[in-house]
Amino acid sequence: MGFEKYYNQNLEETKKKLREAVKFDDFIVQAINNIDEINRIANTLVKRLREWYEFYNPEFSRSIFDHEKFVEAIISGEVKKETDSMGAELSKEDMAAVLNLAEEIDSLYKLKEKQEEYLEKLMQKNCPNIAAVAGYLIGARLIAIAGDLKRLVRFPASTVQLLGAEKALFRHMKTGARAPKYGVIHEHPLVTGVGMKDKGKVARGLADKISIASKIDYFKGEFIGDELRKKLEERFKCLK
Amino acid sequence: MGFEKYYNQNLEETKKKLREAVKFDDFIVQAINNIDEINRIANTLVKRLREWYEFYNPEFSRSIFDHEKFVEAIISGEVKKETDSMGAELSKEDMAAVLNLAEEIDSLYKLKEKQEEYLEKLMQKNCPNIAAVAGYLIGARLIAIAGDLKRLVRFPASTVQLLGAEKALFRHMKTGARAPKYGVIHEHPLVTGVGMKDKGKVARGLADKISIASKIDYFKGEFIGDELRKKLEERFKCLK
Repeated sequence: MGFEKYYNQNLEETKKKLREAVKFDDFIVQAINNIDEINRIANTLVKRLREWYEFYNPEFSRSIFDHEKFVEAIISGEVKKETDSMGAELSKEDMAAVLNLAEEIDSLYKLKEKQEEYLEKLMQKNCPNIAAVAGYLIGARLIAIAGDLKRLVRFPASTVQLLGAEKALFRHMKTGARAPKYGVIHEHPLVTGVGMKDKGKVARGLADKISIASKIDYFKGEFIGDELRKKLEERFKCLK
Repeated sequence: MGFEKYYNQNLEETKKKLREAVKFDDFIVQAINNIDEINRIANTLVKRLREWYEFYNPEFSRSIFDHEKFVEAIISGEVKKETDSMGAELSKEDMAAVLNLAEEIDSLYKLKEKQEEYLEKLMQKNCPNIAAVAGYLIGARLIAIAGDLKRLVRFPASTVQLLGAEKALFRHMKTGARAPKYGVIHEHPLVTGVGMKDKGKVARGLADKISIASKIDYFKGEFIGDELRKKLEERFKCLK
């Protein structure tokens, strides 16, 4: 076999391997990173929008705390300006520029929704157990921090509990500051639902079950996510 | 006059003063900051889009350097994948999620265009001389860094020359590193059009004329921006 033929065959095989190297984990990681990025961006732009809109109608901006509702209200055109408002009058062009920005933010929110739907489907198809126990957003974030599902499966539950709290963990190791009790799972409803002194306990129990769920998903076991979740809810019911 | 009446009258007057305190400068500053923000955001998202799209068609992403053209091509749906591509096959859902992101970026580019049109009008109406000499984007950036037109007018030309290079300037003052020769005006076509060794000279001449232009705009003098610009072009023609 001539060298060229050998080279071409080798190249073909390498390309094939690369094609097959893209796994569902990669899409999960992309999707959750995208969602978090869009969130950050929308927040930055809403702050700009508020600053700008407050020239015109400061009272209204201060009356709505929720960013998404604020944007919706601006777009709806139904916002009334009080007659004794402190805000200045805006020209048509000024107002149009403000509205353009509001519409863009609205479309970012819609993009986020679409990406969340997409991620939810991905998680339900590939990691149904993790999604049931951790929720699809937190589950995806854990996979993204670990790198992929395979690496997440290899972590002990105590590591899963702290994923996303790396900064606090290293600070603890270096300076002896308090050790973190939870990472990204602190946003889980079971953790947010209990008082400060019980959060660590709930986080540990939750991380245990996520760890089990991830192993089942990785080895394509059957779906017991609902049971795992129910057990947790039963166990921590008394803490609420 | 009772206290309450006095209080109310005072409040009314304060509100009126606040209403009148909003000036065109504020809108210029908002608009240029918005444009720069949208630029940053679009760039971040394009990087995500490329990373994601490269799972599917890495060869194509590498073949287009320009971000805007890349996004356009993805949306047009006319991109062909080579039969021996290294990229993986994507499911319909994966592809849809990628496309959604591309469309959002495209709409950010369009928003940027609209905001630039708006800013151009604002500048042409309120600062026609600055816009003619510096260009409306650089002019707006100078006003934004100064805070407003009034403060820009008070700066000597040598300060205008360095606006936007504060970091380099303070480094120079502290450590004795080389002094910066220009700030945001380094993007001006007159400066980009000449060789490295002449940039400082051109920047100084340009800053002089911008300084004059800003004073005319502030005191509502007549329009001589085109003349100023032409003089500069004549003077530096030999350097090209």
